[in-house]
Amino acid sequence: MHSVPSPTFEASDYEMAAGTRRALHLLAGKWSVEVLYLLANGTRRYSEVLYEVGEISKKTLTQTLRTLERAGLVTRRAYPEVPPRVEYSLTSLGWSATGLLMSLYEWSEEHLVDGAPARPPHLRAVPDQGA
Amino acid sequence: MHSVPSPTFEASDYEMAAGTRRALHLLAGKWSVEVLYLLANGTRRYSEVLYEVGEISKKTLTQTLRTLERAGLVTRRAYPEVPPRVEYSLTSLGWSATGLLMSLYEWSEEHLVDGAPARPPHLRAVPDQGA
Repeated sequence: MHSVPSPTFEASDYEMAAGTRRALHLLAGKWSVEVLYLLANGTRRYSEVLYEVGEISKKTLTQTLRTLERAGLVTRRAYPEVPPRVEYSLTSLGWSATGLLMSLYEWSEEHLVDGAPARPPHLRAVPDQGA
Repeated sequence: MHSVPSPTFEASDYEMAAGTRRALHLLAGKWSVEVLYLLANGTRRYSEVLYEVGEISKKTLTQTLRTLERAGLVTRRAYPEVPPRVEYSLTSLGWSATGLLMSLYEWSEEHLVDGAPARPPHLRAVPDQGA
């Protein structure tokens, strides 16, 4: 029916796709974006993250912070006080991740329209040129 | 118990997080990465994408291509031939998306280790300095 195409999608392409997915998997985790953007505003106590991120449960927040900490994006610092104080900050790796997310945001703002399909350039509304 | 923090995570931060998620949602779709990387190698017929991407069902591939097409990342061109020929290519928006994915890949390669948590810099193996 059709000729068998030459397999131009090579092993290296699969590796690239897998590596890309690793980054996407980490950064696209539920609430990861919000937590990273919040910590980009500065160090936060656990209770502050919980309060400022909004509709997140303690369980989910703890999981999110732990995942980000294990991946080396966030550092956790516990102070031996009563009541105990725990603070979270971005690491330099966390900053670079946040930079990548910002690039995605800028791309999204420029090209995607509220989750709706972006219109191809030739279908975009042309600003009224005035009378 | 603890003072209520000032809400420094502002409306604009939530908008940024939402915009970032839109991009992540689109690009992290199952097989999106593979299809975009494949088409970055050049225009492909449907059957070629199916063959080269590998373990993807026709149904899933059709959905993936349609999503990417609606988002303006991929163009579909049908030729009135017998048997019908349908070709897919990256648009300029698709190229910019692929560029973002490449940045994620490079970041992943540099910092993430096979899906395992990346080790913080101070725990990374130091290359043997030789005898």
